[in-house]
This record gives sequence, structure tokens and C-alpha cells, in this order.
Amino acid sequence: MDRDVALGVDIGGTNTAFGFVDRNGKCLAESSIATNAHEPAKKLVARLHAAAVESFKPLEGRSTLRGVGVGAPNANYYRGTVENPPNLKWKGVVRLADLIRRYYDLPVAVTNDANAAALGEMLYGAAKGMKDFIVITLGTGLGSGIVAGGNLVYGADGFAGELGHTTVDPRGRVCGCGRRGCLETYASATGICRTVQELLAERRDESSLRDITPSGLTARMITDAALKGDPIAREAFEFTGRILGMKLADSVAHTSPEAIILFGGLANAGALIFKPTKKHLEEHLLNIFRNKVKLLPSGLKEGNTAVLGASALIWNDLMKPGTAAHR
Amino acid sequence: MDRDVALGVDIGGTNTAFGFVDRNGKCLAESSIATNAHEPAKKLVARLHAAAVESFKPLEGRSTLRGVGVGAPNANYYRGTVENPPNLKWKGVVRLADLIRRYYDLPVAVTNDANAAALGEMLYGAAKGMKDFIVITLGTGLGSGIVAGGNLVYGADGFAGELGHTTVDPRGRVCGCGRRGCLETYASATGICRTVQELLAERRDESSLRDITPSGLTARMITDAALKGDPIAREAFEFTGRILGMKLADSVAHTSPEAIILFGGLANAGALIFKPTKKHLEEHLLNIFRNKVKLLPSGLKEGNTAVLGASALIWNDLMKPGTAAHR
Repeated sequence: MDRDVALGVDIGGTNTAFGFVDRNGKCLAESSIATNAHEPAKKLVARLHAAAVESFKPLEGRSTLRGVGVGAPNANYYRGTVENPPNLKWKGVVRLADLIRRYYDLPVAVTNDANAAALGEMLYGAAKGMKDFIVITLGTGLGSGIVAGGNLVYGADGFAGELGHTTVDPRGRVCGCGRRGCLETYASATGICRTVQELLAERRDESSLRDITPSGLTARMITDAALKGDPIAREAFEFTGRILGMKLADSVAHTSPEAIILFGGLANAGALIFKPTKKHLEEHLLNIFRNKVKLLPSGLKEGNTAVLGASALIWNDLMKPGTAAHR
Repeated sequence: MDRDVALGVDIGGTNTAFGFVDRNGKCLAESSIATNAHEPAKKLVARLHAAAVESFKPLEGRSTLRGVGVGAPNANYYRGTVENPPNLKWKGVVRLADLIRRYYDLPVAVTNDANAAALGEMLYGAAKGMKDFIVITLGTGLGSGIVAGGNLVYGADGFAGELGHTTVDPRGRVCGCGRRGCLETYASATGICRTVQELLAERRDESSLRDITPSGLTARMITDAALKGDPIAREAFEFTGRILGMKLADSVAHTSPEAIILFGGLANAGALIFKPTKKHLEEHLLNIFRNKVKLLPSGLKEGNTAVLGASALIWNDLMKPGTAAHR
């Protein structure tokens, strides 16, 4: 049986993963190559194409490739570009969609990883059938993708959904963006590590985390310690959920989503992060929004979530005229 | 020449204004009746219909009525209802759209005043041709209407765009909604009056505002005093702009608008409010958004802006299948 597939690509700082995904979110073949962050984008695209051709061979004759969707840091959906990505040595503005079109005479669309995750959740995951929801990715930073009325919100310039850089406290923690007190300095894998440092300085509780160097501390270690009842680790999750819940209440006031989906490393801590976030979200919601907004984990399978999201970009765009894939 | 018109209705606590507006935002006839806030909605709709029939007479034969758009407090676009409006004695949930359909076999749509203002700006005003913008109404409270990708954001339940109830400070000023530190307790006509009270207590500057009772103080008096150089009044505008600018930076991070339009009483203070708001907005924006977002005054004529906005609801809905007016 002939089956339509989209090539979903997730460009990370270390590896570039890709897969051929059908309209139901089933990944029929997947693989990955080294990103080689120091080499120009042109070379990555050439190696990606070669690897994808190889990977497609078992599907030949049974599947038809319909487009290429790419999730990448600092990607601009409207322009098909990647602009000064933080973990890659690409200089200035890279016209990534055009580079890919040299190999594929097909719809090509790029967006950032959080937007791709949102489309993945809408087409195959926890937001199936929803028209209004927000996906929050809790990784090294905090990314977000907002869907309103069934459409991903890109904004005037293609950069909408930067909730990681809303302000918790204008005199708060120094952020990588050059400002202070951004949400992602608190609610992210690195944010919770900073919270643990603060708590270790402030309190006198015994904690296994006192035996780990600040540079060696990871969110995973904090999760493990919290599961064993470590008071500092538990308090760090409570604090993170308080800040995140409070700011998500502001987001609800903007777009009134049916659900907020927490995605990525820190979200895997489960109840440790969901419980305080939900509690403080409800506490800060305007009465008309209370007890309505679901706080959900990702409905995408672990491992290839970013590839699934990137592929969803194609299925979503093919359904809608005027979108990037139609250019 | 036959000309299509929409009946735009603005239901306020004291008066209900209405007008017949063409597709270009030209109001061909307008009038108003007393709302009589204590009487049931059914009676208001009956009186409104009688007055509208009268008002339409000079247009008879020259104009065709195509629909009725209503702006009302606590209106729900999806359900066509008004729910516990703060300034009216209507009990519970009033099915306003259905009440109006008893008199008009035409598309009827209701929404809150800030959403109506946003549609008015998009069709006839400062946001003509824009697909992404936010309208902020600075009246007794702070209302907002968000347009993303050319569509008004209603959210899962029809209540999106409650930026007046985002949190500035969880330990801040008591808000009418029962929480603390909501944006509208700072950035609104009543908010700036509270700021003046605080400043009068805190500072020793001479100020003409010391001779006005707190219950008698209005935003207009503060504007007049500021224009005369009153230091307390000037500082109150600076403070209001700082809070508003900071929170609008959060809104930009959500939907990346091309413009933010300030509308309503306090916005009429012009540079007094625009200048500090713009300064602090830019200061708090993530670098990718800086020097891009326009801060604009309303492009709708004074006086009938709410009626224009309500009429825009019909023209906007008629253009789009699946909207409330098509039900």
C-alpha cells in the first residue's frame, strides 16, 4: 500500500535526527547524523540528504515523500531561515529552507522546536482535536508554542511564543538574553539547578545535593534526590512550580487555552513538577478560568518527539493554503 | 445606491448606543437609549429594537441591514451570552444573541467591548491591514483584544484576552476580581488614581491633587494636573507607563504583535501615557522584538468607537465561515 510520508528533521547542537513519518504520526524509518556544529549549514544539509536517501530505501515503492519539515533553534517560519542559533557556529541568517529545496522539489517548512512540538501534540499527541492550547518545553531553557483557534501563533515576525523570556522579576536572575528575571532562569532544567544553589546557601537542611559541584549538578540528580525525599530537592520543585504556575496564569489570561502541555526533560519528573505547577496555576487564575485548564504531559512517544513535531509541520501546512510549505 | 449596513450596539452601564455602519466604517445613523441597568435584558432588547427601527427610517430603501453586532461587558462570543455583567442587574447567564434574533432574522454576534474595539481597529482603524496586533482599552478597568494571524483570539471558552488580570505583583493592590496585583489595579483610570493616592502619602511635593478628595479624584484631573507640570501627576503617569510597558513586553513575547493600540479614556492623555509606556516596553523586550512593535493611538473616531467596533463584528464574521454570525 502506498503511504504518504513527511521527512521530519530535528537539528540539535550535537545530533541531527530525522525520520519518515506518516499522517498518523507513525515513524516508518528514522536515523541521525552528527550535526558538526562548526561546519556551515550547506554541508549539514548535503550530509542530511545523503543519509535520508539511504534511510528511505526500504520505503521505496511503498511510500511517497510529500515534504520536509525542520525544527531548529532560532528558526523563522515565515522566512525559512535560522538566525544566529545559540549552539551552532552558523553565521548570521542562514536560508535553511532554500538550502533544503536544492535537494527536494517539495514543500519545505522550518520552525523552532517548541512550535514543532505544539504541532506534533495537535496532530498526533495530547492536543488531538484541540483548537486552543499551549506547549511548554522545559529543557535547558523554556520554549513555548501557542495554538489559538487551531492555528499556531507565529506573530508579525515569526517569533511569537517566547514565554521563556516573560519577566518574573525585573531585578531577578541574570538571563542568557542579557536581561534579568526571565521565566526560563527559574523554570527549566538549568533554572531548577540555580534554585538548588540558592536553597543550599539559604537553608541548613541536610541534603545529598551538598556533595555535588555546582557545575556537575543536573535536573535529573535533583529529581532523583526529590524522589528519595531530599528536602532541598523537594523545595526546589515546589519553588519552580510556584513560579511556573504563576506565569502560566498570565498566559491563560492571554489565549484561554483548553490545556497546557508540559514537554521535555524537566516535565519527565512527573508529579514533582506537575503538582506544584497546577496548584499555583489555579491559585493565580482569574475566577472565570479556574478548574478549566488541563495541565497535561506530552502525548508523543519519547525519543523521536522532535522528529514527529517537525513532520507535523508538513501535514499541518499541506492542509492550509497560504502556509510556508505552499511557497 | 443600495448600501449594506450592520447594526452596531454598545451596551454600557448607563447608556446603550447603536448605529448603522457600512463596510467602510461610516456610521450612517446613530442614536442611544437609556440602558436601565435594573430591568431585565428582554426589555432592553425590545426598546433597542423599537429605537433602531425609528433610526433606520431615513435609510430605508437606500440601505440593507445585514446583521447585528453587540459589544457588552462579560459577553461570550461562542455562546452569544452575557454572564453576570458587573454594571447591570442581569441575573446569571443571559442569552442575549437569542433575544435579539427574536427581532432580526439575520446574523447576530456578541463579544466584549475590547474585542469589538480590536475588530473595529482592524477593519476601519489603526490596525487596517495588520494580521497581528493587540488593543488595550484603558478605561475604568483594563480590557484587551488580541488578533493573531488575522483572527481574534477567543480561546477555548470565549474569554481570552483578559490582560487586565495578569499579575504585576502577587502581593500588590487588591483587585475587584478578588486577587491581588492585577495589571488593571495599576494601568487604568482607577489605577492611576490609586497611584496618585500612594504618591501623595509617600512624597512631600506640593500638588494641586492634595485638594481633591480621594472619592472625587478622576484620571482626567490627573491628566490636567500633569499638563500643568504637577510633579505628583507626572510621576503617576511615569509609574503607570512603567508597569504597563513591562507587562506589555510579556504580551509581545506571547503573540509578537506588529502593533499595540492604546484605546479609551486614559489613552487620550497622549504622550503623558505613551512616552513612559513605550520606554519601559522597549526596555523589557527580548532583543529579537526590540524597535519593531508600534505603540499606536486608536484610529477610530471619538464618540462612536464602541458602536463601530460592534458593527465590525458582523463584517468580520460574514467574511469567515464557521463564525458566530453564521449560526
